This record gives sequence, structure tokens and C-alpha cells, in this order.
Amino acid sequence: MSQPPFEYRTVDMTDEEFADEQAVYGGLTQALRRLGEVSLRTIVDHDTVIAATRQVEELTARLEAEMIPGNFGVVVTTSGHVRGYGNAVVGMRNPIAPPLKIVQDRVKGGARSEFFLNALYEGPPGKVHGGVLALVLDQIFGEAAAAGGTPGMTGTLTLRYRRPTALGACSAEAWVASAAGIKTIVKGWLKDADGEVTVEAEGLFILPRWAREQLAASGETPPQYE
Amino acid sequence: MSQPPFEYRTVDMTDEEFADEQAVYGGLTQALRRLGEVSLRTIVDHDTVIAATRQVEELTARLEAEMIPGNFGVVVTTSGHVRGYGNAVVGMRNPIAPPLKIVQDRVKGGARSEFFLNALYEGPPGKVHGGVLALVLDQIFGEAAAAGGTPGMTGTLTLRYRRPTALGACSAEAWVASAAGIKTIVKGWLKDADGEVTVEAEGLFILPRWAREQLAASGETPPQYE
Repeated sequence: MSQPPFEYRTVDMTDEEFADEQAVYGGLTQALRRLGEVSLRTIVDHDTVIAATRQVEELTARLEAEMIPGNFGVVVTTSGHVRGYGNAVVGMRNPIAPPLKIVQDRVKGGARSEFFLNALYEGPPGKVHGGVLALVLDQIFGEAAAAGGTPGMTGTLTLRYRRPTALGACSAEAWVASAAGIKTIVKGWLKDADGEVTVEAEGLFILPRWAREQLAASGETPPQYE
Repeated sequence: MSQPPFEYRTVDMTDEEFADEQAVYGGLTQALRRLGEVSLRTIVDHDTVIAATRQVEELTARLEAEMIPGNFGVVVTTSGHVRGYGNAVVGMRNPIAPPLKIVQDRVKGGARSEFFLNALYEGPPGKVHGGVLALVLDQIFGEAAAAGGTPGMTGTLTLRYRRPTALGACSAEAWVASAAGIKTIVKGWLKDADGEVTVEAEGLFILPRWAREQLAASGETPPQYE
């Protein structure tokens, strides 16, 4: 199994330009997240919905006049910021990301997050989609492994669903249970708004050879997303 | 562990009204999916982004003038259609859903889907987020269990990531490996555009007692989403 290394592009950008970008695009993305939720819950008349659709298409045409090709990727600025803006869980410019703010614990090797999952993350009626819970846990687990100093890609992930998770406030925590060589085992849980554990999980994270070589060559530590 | 049964609301709606709703809201949601992707990839100047943000906020205000409270849920029409519009993977009115069209095989007990994951579903640069792969597999696995006549909620889900999955076209398939009493084991895989298996998975689906009682009382079969 041979894989090309991930490409981390670098852009020339001052701290001020970075802050400006966060404010401008953060505003657009947050507005789109709210529009997405409202579009699911609205019951206005069909003519209003059709008119709104035309406006969305006009807006899209203006924004797509100049675009990067393909995906956003992970871009490092010359001032040292890591822009993983496209990430589906934490990406600042990704309207499908809740987004999670994940706090890494680099002393003990762990990560945790408190977040809110609204109507867009539904599976069974009134409950968070089980796959969405897997999605957020995979991100938190990966950041826990990285915080423990042993980053890796998900090798296996096992989720035990103890009970349905109500839409709304949630929290999750993960920690490095063991690390040996290129293999790191992470364990953790997810809780609902009542503080009940609804999901328990365990993951094996593996650092592929090409990634080890790349990290060794660059002397870099893995990214903490902004 | 006691859980309230899921609520399947019923609405009075003709086939014609249903088709109209699909066209009107399908159009809005599809336009929002495209706007979401473009918002991540655009490099127009900041003034244009700020003006777009204002417009998104104005649109939101018009649509939120009348809304259902909370989440969408699963709503059954009197003409027999099941509207799981809020589902995070397949929901017709959910802009974060790719959305997947899943084909159930009710003879053999399985489900499969071909779908496209764009820049919004990124994890590592150029690759699908591992948690997004878990999200789509959880939905397909649940539909496979239901197609096998033994529906259930995800009890455990184990994912083995064989290699990174490039953003783009993907396919997945799941089948009932065994079913005994209230427990159904589903197995399956996900392939990338080259037809390489990138994820293998296994899930245990369990039908909780309250759901068994509810199904028995209603004589209903589990929903196939539209």
C-alpha cells in the first residue's frame, strides 16, 4: 500500500491578514450554517422558497467567479497558522461543520469538546444521527492521539452506542490509553445534555511510513486546527 | 434504560402536493449545497464576501419568519410517503446531506449506494474525512438491516480503514450477515473511484423493546426514506 504524502501548502500571510480572513470568512460561514438550519425548518409559502432559491443561485454565481480548484486542503501560513478550513468537523470555512472547538491536552495526551448539534444532524426523530456521533468522535480521537505526541491516521474505530443521543448540547472526551511504536490506542466517550454517556468508543491510530518520513524531514509537529 | 418511542408524525398530503414539495424544497436545498461548496472554495475579494454575508442574513430572516419548532423528524403523509427530510445523510431538505440515494435489496437483505463526496467532506488534504465515511456507512448499514426485515438501531459499529479515500466518486455496499432474534449483524465495505476497498465495516443492530412493541402495534414496516 503506497500513498502519496498529504500536501500542506504554505501561503505568505501576516497575522493581521490572518485575523481579517477569520473575521470575513467566519462571518459568511456562520451565516450559511444558520441559513442551512432555517432552510430545513421553514414553512413559508412556496413562492417565497422559489424566490429564495433564485437568490441563492445568484449569490453562488458571484462567489464562484474566482475559486480554488478542487478541495481546500490544509494550508500553513508563513506566520505559523494552520488553516484546515475545509475540515468537515472543525473547518472554519466549512458550513457543514458544527463546528467543533476541540481543546487538546498535550500534557496527559487527550482532547475534549463541548458542542451543539442542531436539527441538521438528525437521524432518528429528535436524535443525533449515529454516524454524526462517529464523525465528531473520529476527529476528537485523532486530535487526542496527536496531543499525546503520537499522531496517526485512523486504523480502526469501534463505537458502542449505549442509548440514543438527543439533539442539542453534547460533550466528548478522548485520551491516549496506550502508545507503542507507530500504534496509538485512544479511548473515549460522548455524553448528552443530561451528562449521560451515550456512546463509548475505542480507536487505533497508525502513523504510516511515508508520514513518519515526512514528519522527520520537516521537524514539524502535527497541526492544531484554527 | 427506558427511551420514549420515536415520534412519526402524520400529515394530510396528496401525491401531487408531495411532488410539488419535492420540487420546491429539493431546488432550494440543492442550491444551498452548491453555495456551501462554493463558499469554501471562493477567492473573491473581501468586500464581495461581506456583501454576500448580508444577503445570506436577509434570506435567512425571510425564511425563518415561519418555522417548525426544533427538528424536522420523520413525517408520514396520508398518501403513504415517508418524509425523513432532516436526515444528515439522505435528507431531501438537509443541505449538509450529500445526499445519498440508497437502494435497498429486500430479497437478499442489503443496501448499496453510489455517491459523490465533494470538498465539504474533507479530512486529511484531498481525502474524505474518516468520520464522514463512518457517517455514510452507518446509514447504509441501518438500511441494510431494515431491508433484511430485521430493523434496529446501531448497537456497535466497527470500521477498519484500509487506506485513505480520495474525495470524489465513492460506492458502498452492506448486507445482513446474520440475524438472530433482536440482533442483526451487517457487514460491508466502501470503495473509492478506482474500485479499491478503502474501508471495511461490521455493525450490530438491535431492535429495542419499545420499538418492537411499537412496530407490532402499528403493523408497520420500517421506513424507506424519500
